[in-house]
Amino acid sequence: MKVSPEILNLIPYKPGKPISETQREYGISKVYKLASNENPLGVSPKALEAVNQAVSRLNLYPDPTFYDLVGKVSELWQLPRNKITIGNGSDELFDLLIRIYCEPGEGIITTEAAFSAYPISAQAARVKTHVVPMKPGLKTDLAAMSEYLKKNREKDKIRLVFIPNPNNPTGTYVPAPEVDAFLKDWGNHDEILIIFDEAYTEFVRAKDYRPALDDMRRYSNVIVTRTMSKIFGLAGLRVGLMAGPEQAVDLINRVRKPFNVNELAQVAAVAALQDSDFIRRTIEITWQGLDYFYKELQKLGVPYVESQGNFVLFDTERDVMPVFESLLRRGVILRPVLNYGFKTHLRMSVGLPEENEAAIKALRDVFQEIPKRK
Amino acid sequence: MKVSPEILNLIPYKPGKPISETQREYGISKVYKLASNENPLGVSPKALEAVNQAVSRLNLYPDPTFYDLVGKVSELWQLPRNKITIGNGSDELFDLLIRIYCEPGEGIITTEAAFSAYPISAQAARVKTHVVPMKPGLKTDLAAMSEYLKKNREKDKIRLVFIPNPNNPTGTYVPAPEVDAFLKDWGNHDEILIIFDEAYTEFVRAKDYRPALDDMRRYSNVIVTRTMSKIFGLAGLRVGLMAGPEQAVDLINRVRKPFNVNELAQVAAVAALQDSDFIRRTIEITWQGLDYFYKELQKLGVPYVESQGNFVLFDTERDVMPVFESLLRRGVILRPVLNYGFKTHLRMSVGLPEENEAAIKALRDVFQEIPKRK
Repeated sequence: MKVSPEILNLIPYKPGKPISETQREYGISKVYKLASNENPLGVSPKALEAVNQAVSRLNLYPDPTFYDLVGKVSELWQLPRNKITIGNGSDELFDLLIRIYCEPGEGIITTEAAFSAYPISAQAARVKTHVVPMKPGLKTDLAAMSEYLKKNREKDKIRLVFIPNPNNPTGTYVPAPEVDAFLKDWGNHDEILIIFDEAYTEFVRAKDYRPALDDMRRYSNVIVTRTMSKIFGLAGLRVGLMAGPEQAVDLINRVRKPFNVNELAQVAAVAALQDSDFIRRTIEITWQGLDYFYKELQKLGVPYVESQGNFVLFDTERDVMPVFESLLRRGVILRPVLNYGFKTHLRMSVGLPEENEAAIKALRDVFQEIPKRK
Repeated sequence: MKVSPEILNLIPYKPGKPISETQREYGISKVYKLASNENPLGVSPKALEAVNQAVSRLNLYPDPTFYDLVGKVSELWQLPRNKITIGNGSDELFDLLIRIYCEPGEGIITTEAAFSAYPISAQAARVKTHVVPMKPGLKTDLAAMSEYLKKNREKDKIRLVFIPNPNNPTGTYVPAPEVDAFLKDWGNHDEILIIFDEAYTEFVRAKDYRPALDDMRRYSNVIVTRTMSKIFGLAGLRVGLMAGPEQAVDLINRVRKPFNVNELAQVAAVAALQDSDFIRRTIEITWQGLDYFYKELQKLGVPYVESQGNFVLFDTERDVMPVFESLLRRGVILRPVLNYGFKTHLRMSVGLPEENEAAIKALRDVFQEIPKRK
């Protein structure tokens, strides 16, 4: 069958290596996975309870309107229902936005080292991704993005702006004044939508960070996405939340499959959003883990990037694949980020204290085994 | 924001009315839903057990390779792993196939009164759906479809053929000799793919029906999809299965989101596929329910279509919306199928015996209240 070159040449997203696969391939039973920024505390107990109550009705289709979940988000975010919708993970929301708003040959724009789901979805839709280089410190350069748009938006038909804030895998963020400057240029523009991907927003410690829900209220072309996969501990169930203009919500609700979000995901999300104790504990363990990683990476003498997420990106200063594989043999899964242009870096998620210690110990051993690049 | 007319004019899929919505709107607690062809026996006990064991690890992302589930399907269908993939419901598989194989302006073909997910996905991808009229008895006319393709395939760039077999909402099927004739014309053709949507295959009683897995082995361009939502009782979790040529499987695995199928869906599906007792009991109750419906609909004096699915389509011979609403007030949800061109028909799923009886009783009352059209 004839297939478009965009599809034929598509390199799929490479997820963190699953524990089961590592166990199979390396014949080891004890595996620490700090590769996918998952919640080390497990699942919110309130979500677990809600799931247990709902399993017996899994023969019924999920609620296609997300009545309870949209209601809960509406209450928490103080937004009307018709400005909220739900995806099978926030990656599905990005995919839908691109398919709805971009025709083949048109474009999206994002930062260098942004979440690779954006360019993959764009390519699958025969849409071009424009990438703006980072500033020093692996920081998203919104001023440069604004300039790029001024020069190229019309000729390249750029329709969507993806701003991951904080960004994964770098862990960096865009300070509020820089967001303000960008929105001064592009807020309320009626030919582009600006999507703030806030998957890690709950973990931020930086004082000059501001989530974009208020911007979304102020500007007609701002969209905010959140995920239930990180602080809420529901990666296995797939729930992404979105707030945005009514038109975008309406069109997503037409194009998405009616049952894109499964029943347990919906009930678990409603419960997890209200589990303030679990959220608080997750923030505590994350910040403690990050501080521990910073201290130990300094001892190991390798540079890292201060993180606003639940992970840290560090430079092994070695070819990363031998380091990654040597860690696997020791039962520790970290995340190479070669596809983001980092040839010597690894991303390490915060785990439980014993997992963090196991990862650092394994790193110490591997660093002794494999010398730094000259 | 400028949006393509295909998207702006998209009329979304209309699912069966949810029980909770009916309870809210009509202020009634006891509601019988025979509207979505769900499994009346509930969830496979083996699947429930598997789900209960997996809930505690929902903080982890699902296996993006579907290792266990693809392995189980591979074993049951006697096919290599690289000919199998999984969707978030089979509707997602149809959507992916269209997005992969059709460029905007190209086409798909199917029968009149086919599952509306095909044309909706096509329209969202700016792809045209060619519809071939049914034969008398609301039967899919594969011979006419073949003729249509001979005349129009090249000029209209028709790339995909969707053959729902048995079809929903009609309940009719295509006998094996007609499939053979179609495949003689189009099997192994290298410019079209032929997709057999077999969501209801397990319920078929017709002697001259044949599932298409063998055809898929014989012809390079045949794809088969199945669903876990019907006989396996997992509608709430979203799992569609697909067997097809390696290229199609490979391309779907690149374009789909890595975590499109959630963790509980994967473990539940593995268990449900092996729950032969639950499958057998579901077939029994379905066939008994259909026979009961046939008998009662005859008594009610309204025509119905003999069904190979777990539902029956019948002609109320009245304007359907007043009948539908009057049934809702009595706590019975059936399914109007106006969007398929049936202005006086309802589709009724097989439920438990008491649900079937409640539906027939409500129908009897409503038919007395609302006279037949002149």
